[in-house]
Amino acid sequence: MNVRITEDFWIKYRNLVRKEMIPYQWNVLNDIADINIERERDDDAIPNEKSHAIENFKIAAGLSEGEFYGYVFQDSDVYKWLEAASYVLREEDDAELRKKADEAVDLIVAAQQPDGYLDTYFIIKEPERKFMTLRESHELYCAGHFFEAACAYYTVTGNKKVLETAVKLADCIDAHFGPEEGKLHGADGHPEVEIGLMKLYAVTGEKRYLKLCEYFISIRGECHKFFAEQDKAEKGMEPIFEGMRHGLDTYFQIQEAPAKQSTAEGHAVRQIYLCTAMAELAREDGDKELADACRRIWRNIVDRRMYVTGGIGSTVNGEAFTLDYDLPNDTMYCETCASVGLIFFAENMLKLESKGEYADVMERALYNTVLSGMALDGRHFFYVNPLEVDPRQSRKNPTKSHVKAVRPEWLACACCPPNLARMIASVDDYIYMKKDKEIYVNLYIASEASFLVKNEKVKIKLETDYPKSGSVRLSIKKSGDSVIGFKLRIPGWAENVYGQIDGVQEKITEEKGYWQVDVVNEYTEINLNMPMYVERNYANTRVSADTGKVCISRGPLIYCAESVDNGEELQNIEMLEDAPFKESFEPKLLNGITVINTEGKRLEQKENSPLYSHKKAYEVKDQKIKLIPYYAWGNRGENEMRVWLHEK
Amino acid sequence: MNVRITEDFWIKYRNLVRKEMIPYQWNVLNDIADINIERERDDDAIPNEKSHAIENFKIAAGLSEGEFYGYVFQDSDVYKWLEAASYVLREEDDAELRKKADEAVDLIVAAQQPDGYLDTYFIIKEPERKFMTLRESHELYCAGHFFEAACAYYTVTGNKKVLETAVKLADCIDAHFGPEEGKLHGADGHPEVEIGLMKLYAVTGEKRYLKLCEYFISIRGECHKFFAEQDKAEKGMEPIFEGMRHGLDTYFQIQEAPAKQSTAEGHAVRQIYLCTAMAELAREDGDKELADACRRIWRNIVDRRMYVTGGIGSTVNGEAFTLDYDLPNDTMYCETCASVGLIFFAENMLKLESKGEYADVMERALYNTVLSGMALDGRHFFYVNPLEVDPRQSRKNPTKSHVKAVRPEWLACACCPPNLARMIASVDDYIYMKKDKEIYVNLYIASEASFLVKNEKVKIKLETDYPKSGSVRLSIKKSGDSVIGFKLRIPGWAENVYGQIDGVQEKITEEKGYWQVDVVNEYTEINLNMPMYVERNYANTRVSADTGKVCISRGPLIYCAESVDNGEELQNIEMLEDAPFKESFEPKLLNGITVINTEGKRLEQKENSPLYSHKKAYEVKDQKIKLIPYYAWGNRGENEMRVWLHEK
Repeated sequence: MNVRITEDFWIKYRNLVRKEMIPYQWNVLNDIADINIERERDDDAIPNEKSHAIENFKIAAGLSEGEFYGYVFQDSDVYKWLEAASYVLREEDDAELRKKADEAVDLIVAAQQPDGYLDTYFIIKEPERKFMTLRESHELYCAGHFFEAACAYYTVTGNKKVLETAVKLADCIDAHFGPEEGKLHGADGHPEVEIGLMKLYAVTGEKRYLKLCEYFISIRGECHKFFAEQDKAEKGMEPIFEGMRHGLDTYFQIQEAPAKQSTAEGHAVRQIYLCTAMAELAREDGDKELADACRRIWRNIVDRRMYVTGGIGSTVNGEAFTLDYDLPNDTMYCETCASVGLIFFAENMLKLESKGEYADVMERALYNTVLSGMALDGRHFFYVNPLEVDPRQSRKNPTKSHVKAVRPEWLACACCPPNLARMIASVDDYIYMKKDKEIYVNLYIASEASFLVKNEKVKIKLETDYPKSGSVRLSIKKSGDSVIGFKLRIPGWAENVYGQIDGVQEKITEEKGYWQVDVVNEYTEINLNMPMYVERNYANTRVSADTGKVCISRGPLIYCAESVDNGEELQNIEMLEDAPFKESFEPKLLNGITVINTEGKRLEQKENSPLYSHKKAYEVKDQKIKLIPYYAWGNRGENEMRVWLHEK
Repeated sequence: MNVRITEDFWIKYRNLVRKEMIPYQWNVLNDIADINIERERDDDAIPNEKSHAIENFKIAAGLSEGEFYGYVFQDSDVYKWLEAASYVLREEDDAELRKKADEAVDLIVAAQQPDGYLDTYFIIKEPERKFMTLRESHELYCAGHFFEAACAYYTVTGNKKVLETAVKLADCIDAHFGPEEGKLHGADGHPEVEIGLMKLYAVTGEKRYLKLCEYFISIRGECHKFFAEQDKAEKGMEPIFEGMRHGLDTYFQIQEAPAKQSTAEGHAVRQIYLCTAMAELAREDGDKELADACRRIWRNIVDRRMYVTGGIGSTVNGEAFTLDYDLPNDTMYCETCASVGLIFFAENMLKLESKGEYADVMERALYNTVLSGMALDGRHFFYVNPLEVDPRQSRKNPTKSHVKAVRPEWLACACCPPNLARMIASVDDYIYMKKDKEIYVNLYIASEASFLVKNEKVKIKLETDYPKSGSVRLSIKKSGDSVIGFKLRIPGWAENVYGQIDGVQEKITEEKGYWQVDVVNEYTEINLNMPMYVERNYANTRVSADTGKVCISRGPLIYCAESVDNGEELQNIEMLEDAPFKESFEPKLLNGITVINTEGKRLEQKENSPLYSHKKAYEVKDQKIKLIPYYAWGNRGENEMRVWLHEK
């Protein structure tokens, strides 16, 4: 499968990654960028004046002197950068970038210990505690990110050193962990190595890595005991990561064996990374019990714990899931990384069983919370993606201090920017899926692709200006005469969809979210029209934060109101239940967006009225309401924003 | 002034204090109660399995061996208990209670150091750090509570030891703090000693205590420097109170001199205790600048930062004020102590300038947030008084973990229960005020009182069943023939008030919130009728949490809905703008309350409907709505509660 994106909307983002994010992040990792690093939370005790991530590798390799600096998982920033750089190089080679990436690889290789061990924190700072504090250490988490990066970089560039280093590290981990006596019987507090091992297995074919992944997942339900034993053995030593020492079992998803779990719990990124590996393993092993667990957790997230923007994580405390239908709009977390992870999970569920609803959620997360994680300049990032923000409250009410109204330049805990970079740089991987000798079109991103199916060469040209419109043309050219099944996703948001095959109007029959078209001829042209109406969205009334409120969407895009367009005090704007919408494309606004306009009302408080009164002390005035896509908010200075608006 | 409460509503509460709270708290302080102590917050690191407060005094006095245990301000629990016990004894002597109180006094006396110093934490644990860590130490805070207790106990019982001990401690503090060279130029991080010093000045007439109070208030704007110097001198030592070391200046109200301050900032109890002392001092000194500051902060609180229940403090982080109109209903703090403090501040503003609006706020805080701090059994207490709670969210969303739906038995940081006890036990002090040879009636609590005014003996009998109704009869008997001015408060909530004097209908002219009646005859009977309508209350639209919502009140009582009466998911209940209310007194419900009934609607979600949908997936059904007074909520097991309800 070879895919090349041709659509302007995505080319812009991918160019930002190539031209802004990747060079910028490289400078940050090397401490040569002139930036302001922002703490996510006021109470954050970790030093964060610089990244120091590359320097940590130099010190670990003996090429520089000094102390380890940063989070215990600082290495993963380098790995995620390397993975993103690989996808950028896959699209188009770049000697300068290749040089930087090779340099990073060389440093990683040099930092690795003779036994294969690799983690700069422990190499530099506390070698005696290697694999001793798995609840907090993030050692396997970092290894997982390295495996992902190594597989990507090796696949794209053929760099063998990086793969050998990954294999050596995987073997080192395999030598230390497993069911055998004398080995450690536990997993990392932060799932991720499981994803990396599956990738390494795919690239090397080494079954031991698959087995190790199986082991890390199956042992998770017993990690409570394992962590407690590690604590005991470490008695009296300072925690590696203070805040995690007393985390609940659910924070780490160790409350029971993953195959028994039914709800999304604890730290959202951990949960979603675990689910990603579980789904992939369930498919690889044909493990029905694990597949059922994935389905249960998926249903729990999508039916009860996901924001309309595809954000997950309802509280900053533990960056975590909370309970069914608890989706506050202003104190939530909705970490960018968690929505990136939701796409990983959705992709693996799609591979497990091809249902369009998985791609629906993938699309929801991608076009809303993931893209909102990045400013339109590619140099400012959100960690937290609120559905409602008042910058005055964020400044003065510490319950909301994690909710920023403007994207900072860089973040002390810098997991999100490189995660965004690798997601956007690899978005071509999510458009098509080849499964059971059929070709699925999951995302409508204009592109050219070629496949080998049933020994035929199949070339596809997908033309669309999605998400500006829902008109898609698929031109298919194939080399032989087999029947090749195409499955075009009919998004959950779409109504009155119509299509043509080779100019002939076709009735669309939708099965499991897809329109099946069997292609036989050498040339076939499929037209699919998904009219993008402006839609009102209502939350289930069990979501107490959204009672009496409406959220507007158009196609896959969720819309929001900003005070820069609508005046301050967005709580006093009322949408009217029967007011028509007018949409217009504004090419110069926010890189070109479709704006939605409507007539509404505004409650206007009378001058000098008291805090409370027996009569309503406001007048109701007409208000022109202007909405913009959620992903583009926060790009015009600090101002209020709301996704859910009161409806009269 | 001698006042005796005769009203059943208050006698019940005062009997609870006498028969339940005081003996129960004594047992807690002596670690002989069989109780469950609850942490306010999950992240609270302070040990809290027992009180140990009396034991600390025994150890400090050399009468027992062991270590200090509890919060650094644990002593204040004993002092507040002693103060409450004094008021209980004032109402009716009780040999057994007197014995316990004397025993407590003897312990306090025995723990005092030869130089007058008194604070068990520092005596037992870190004597070398006496007065070295004022930001965190609470030494003067504890002293202030002791002064208040000593003055009360001395006044009621004539116990001289307790007053001598207080004087000795005040002299010790006076010897260490002040503008003179060689003394410490700073104040306590937690205001309170200022209030105590004013009381000690009132009882002893010793001007040095007044001067010291002035000093502590005026130096506050320079405490930032003072605290920084103390930090420096202490370099390397463990903080006494970790969480406070990095508090913002506003947390301690040291951002500028109190006389310059204009807004309520930081820790709500600290702010309100400071204001209390400022107002008292402004009156005593005739300090106009300080009086103006009090007026500014008062206006800021009452016009922009106070909940409709008289609660203050919009965030759990720092238990603090946040910003204007930021009044979230479900993540707020509204500490019981803060509303007790608001009554102190209001009382002192009343004494400074007799305007009925101060008494209005006093009444609002007293009948709502203060009373809600205590269960109807007198043995369970709220620290936090929410305006909206869903117990499932409190259990599973840590952003709301401080918001309990049921009152715990005791609290690790046990400031609120004894503060409630001293408030309720002294509520007779807030009914009347003698000022400028006039008698003010501020609270309508049935009582008998006698005054000496213009050398006349004036006896008052106030009859009412307030807050059940607003009918008040005042029978006045006086010994001479001077004209004595009576000022009867016309509450802000009241409309269509009418009155009679000796059976003759009188037109009520209201001035500054009072109806002035000049009484000449030996016997006069005044009837005041304040009809208690059920009223709708609307918040200023700048309060984003309350848009589209209504809160119901009747007289001084704010009402709320509980799910035990109205079914679960209170967010789906809609009040109707034009629905009539029906009130009925239910003598057996919650110790006898007036219930408000009305017809409303309920949004009922259709079975198996998704999380989000383009059409409203609910039906609107009729719903009988039943509301109860806010103070009585949470007495029927764990259930949902809301003060602000959606209105259609």
